[in-house]
Amino acid sequence: MERNLGLFLAKRASITPGLEGLVEVESGRRFTYRELDARANRLANALLARGVDKGDRVACLMMNGVEYVETFFALAKIGAVLVPLNWRLVADELAYILGNAGARLLLYGADFAELVETLHRRAARETELTDWIELGGGEHRHPFADDYESLVAAAPSEPPPIRAGEHDLLFIMYTSGTTGLPKGSMHTHGTFTWAVMSMGTTAELRFHDRYAVVLPLYHVGALLPVISNVYRGVTNVVLRQFEPGRMWEVIERERVSVSLLVPAMLNFMLQVPEGERRDYSSMRWILSGATPVPVTLIERYRVIGIEIHQAYGLTESGGPACIISPDDAMKRIGSTGKTFFHNDVRIVDETGRDVPPGVPGELIVQAPHVMVGYWRNPEATAEAIRNGWLYTGDVAIADAEGFVTIHDRVKDMVISGGENVYPAEIENVILRHPAVAEVAVIGQASERWGESPFAVVVVKHGERLSEADVLGHCDGKLARYKRPKGVAFVDEIPRNPTGKALKRILRERFPGPAPE
Amino acid sequence: MERNLGLFLAKRASITPGLEGLVEVESGRRFTYRELDARANRLANALLARGVDKGDRVACLMMNGVEYVETFFALAKIGAVLVPLNWRLVADELAYILGNAGARLLLYGADFAELVETLHRRAARETELTDWIELGGGEHRHPFADDYESLVAAAPSEPPPIRAGEHDLLFIMYTSGTTGLPKGSMHTHGTFTWAVMSMGTTAELRFHDRYAVVLPLYHVGALLPVISNVYRGVTNVVLRQFEPGRMWEVIERERVSVSLLVPAMLNFMLQVPEGERRDYSSMRWILSGATPVPVTLIERYRVIGIEIHQAYGLTESGGPACIISPDDAMKRIGSTGKTFFHNDVRIVDETGRDVPPGVPGELIVQAPHVMVGYWRNPEATAEAIRNGWLYTGDVAIADAEGFVTIHDRVKDMVISGGENVYPAEIENVILRHPAVAEVAVIGQASERWGESPFAVVVVKHGERLSEADVLGHCDGKLARYKRPKGVAFVDEIPRNPTGKALKRILRERFPGPAPE
Repeated sequence: MERNLGLFLAKRASITPGLEGLVEVESGRRFTYRELDARANRLANALLARGVDKGDRVACLMMNGVEYVETFFALAKIGAVLVPLNWRLVADELAYILGNAGARLLLYGADFAELVETLHRRAARETELTDWIELGGGEHRHPFADDYESLVAAAPSEPPPIRAGEHDLLFIMYTSGTTGLPKGSMHTHGTFTWAVMSMGTTAELRFHDRYAVVLPLYHVGALLPVISNVYRGVTNVVLRQFEPGRMWEVIERERVSVSLLVPAMLNFMLQVPEGERRDYSSMRWILSGATPVPVTLIERYRVIGIEIHQAYGLTESGGPACIISPDDAMKRIGSTGKTFFHNDVRIVDETGRDVPPGVPGELIVQAPHVMVGYWRNPEATAEAIRNGWLYTGDVAIADAEGFVTIHDRVKDMVISGGENVYPAEIENVILRHPAVAEVAVIGQASERWGESPFAVVVVKHGERLSEADVLGHCDGKLARYKRPKGVAFVDEIPRNPTGKALKRILRERFPGPAPE
Repeated sequence: MERNLGLFLAKRASITPGLEGLVEVESGRRFTYRELDARANRLANALLARGVDKGDRVACLMMNGVEYVETFFALAKIGAVLVPLNWRLVADELAYILGNAGARLLLYGADFAELVETLHRRAARETELTDWIELGGGEHRHPFADDYESLVAAAPSEPPPIRAGEHDLLFIMYTSGTTGLPKGSMHTHGTFTWAVMSMGTTAELRFHDRYAVVLPLYHVGALLPVISNVYRGVTNVVLRQFEPGRMWEVIERERVSVSLLVPAMLNFMLQVPEGERRDYSSMRWILSGATPVPVTLIERYRVIGIEIHQAYGLTESGGPACIISPDDAMKRIGSTGKTFFHNDVRIVDETGRDVPPGVPGELIVQAPHVMVGYWRNPEATAEAIRNGWLYTGDVAIADAEGFVTIHDRVKDMVISGGENVYPAEIENVILRHPAVAEVAVIGQASERWGESPFAVVVVKHGERLSEADVLGHCDGKLARYKRPKGVAFVDEIPRNPTGKALKRILRERFPGPAPE
């Protein structure tokens, strides 16, 4: 029982009751850890009174705020299972996830009232939802929903009975599904506790640090730091929305010392003219990831005294997998580093055997913080976790010192005439052409080679480019079998919200020549 | 298998191979984490080649140095069980421990060659020892022992097979036995991993900190920080001996930032005239404990910019139990604080029920880092661990905020006419008499009351004091039933090495009046 992750908040509140636990930047509300824990207890007791049981799935469609953190800990304490929902998804996608998870209760913010209206209409047919709690709706609240704040205010603040331990489910987080339908990655109190340990030991969170929470909390990369902050005695400075100028202002005003941002945000911040005139002396480091951070960006932040660390991870790994310091990143351009403290990685061939340094293979991860599997999907689980190792689906190369560089998705790899062709390698060559703005390389069916690489190119504004120009540019820079067999020009490459090219869509659009 | 604590050194070496892992102050030797791990691997392989098996007990009688740390990790990797020996003990005591533990191999430093000679003579009759490795003996080495450094040098540095996991024994540490024969407190890879987590999260160890290892490594209070330092990427600056002037010099030269010292050491350091003229700006905090740190000492260190934190713990709890910051300690004189992050405490009466704040009771501890029991002593284990709680044998009081103050050993408590009488309370009153240097209160058998309190007093040099003076001093300050029924004057109160009065010896010496 002592391994219930909800008790981390109770312990933090008992050790440092007066420490500021959470600040909402936009609303100005501030909560000590004692207050946060009391509110989480109230919510837990309110949910128990509604009949929420151990193991019940409770979905959450909310912007970042104190209620998200309360919900996490309240559900953890009573053993209910959080299903965080990505509010960028459309009703069809959300209905699928709610139905698949078998959620019985939806906690949602009034910002999403319209979307929830649709979900409510479809609920009886497509989901098991029977209970709705709305946050911030006031008198405009949906008639089918109860008011979050009234429930919390009316419930007692005594600690609820602790109903879950190490091996019980904590949350089911649906992964973005670039390769098909979303899958629910299951984490237990035990797996996520180890993720917290790993984050707290590898990225240096210090007692009294102040962490800016910017990414949406339905991402493991946002949720994990917040829980780690509770563990380490760090204050969460929570923003509902990222705005680069405001970010500098918040750093100054709230004495923010650490954060996690995606590379695009780092870039936007440097373009704010008045930004660097702010007092950001409190800022020690920013963790980044999802896509590689350009070295020039790392250097520019270093000049102003902020260290950019980069991490690579997956929902399935609980977050942590690889991390690299700015020093190492500048020496090994494009690398995502070595492991976090509590995980191992290997790079293996199709048969599961280790490949030597310098040779690409699939990156696999082992850790006590790897998920226990996909919800109601034993086939996908068996494919993802083999012999205790998580198969990431990412192609990577390690150097002799163990620094890992991610190249491609395994599913995006092109096998041409029996040779593995890595799109990233070809893309890097084509990107060096001065008239190319963006490029994505996919595999096309080929009678002769099985598959052949094919380039989809976006030309820079005001430039002109022919297929022959692109192919000629590749000559001498790529082996013949890696040279694209054709080029298509498009206005835009479809990408997911974190910026990854949706190659599945490109493959559908450019399937290759009809068989001769 | 991933929960093998020996792999913490391998992971540290893999993540930060070039980070300085250990410095021996006296010898000047320096080892990176890569070198430390390679040496631990060599020792592990050498031990495997000698037939050391998983579960075998290996005793260690060495001064602090790189070899102690290597031995810890080498044994952990191959699943052998470390038995650290207190080199202040005499041959009889050591022979008892070696025999009780069933140790088959003794690693010892040449400093203890004479003592080991005796042990070797007695080995066949009293122990299972058959194998001896001497460190630093050179050509004067005992003929029955092999040379440590030659063995390490000759063995391969490849990682040995990892033979132990979470539930396997890691070490057996014999407790000082103020209440009888030494008992072997058993810790597993799992329990001690949680102790490391707790230390790393509650006492703030930062990446690149430099920790002065001063207390002997056979103490859990010295061993735990060293393992935590490996976990958090801290450099161990190891001293063989404490000398207050040298300590300041080492802080300056090695840029020491954190340490753990007993209160007497803190006091000695302040008496070094040239000490505070050293550059100790690197020093952030010193953890202290065993006996309460006087507030004046905390204040004096605060003035020069060093924070004194105090901890309370036991070998049986894996080290951590309670800790207090200097801020809190100055507001709550004598308190040992609140819990570490991963443990709970309660204060209970004889029936195991919680007592209210302000009422004394026995302090009990629950944590994943509590020992699994006493080696080959199920009776003592059953007495120490009841319903998952470790009974510390210490009488404590908590205030309404949860701050704990330790008062007495339960075994030292006097039960007089059915009332619990706490010697510390009486001692505090008698100590306020200007002519009293030291005092210890014990229980004496009494036909009328069962037990009665009895005071053993050391008079200050040049002062005079009678029994009537002492008893008169207590009048009006203590309830009648707490007033000692007699006073004895002695030149010295017998104490153990950490300064605790050995009341068992006093009770033997002053058993009370013969029955009428």
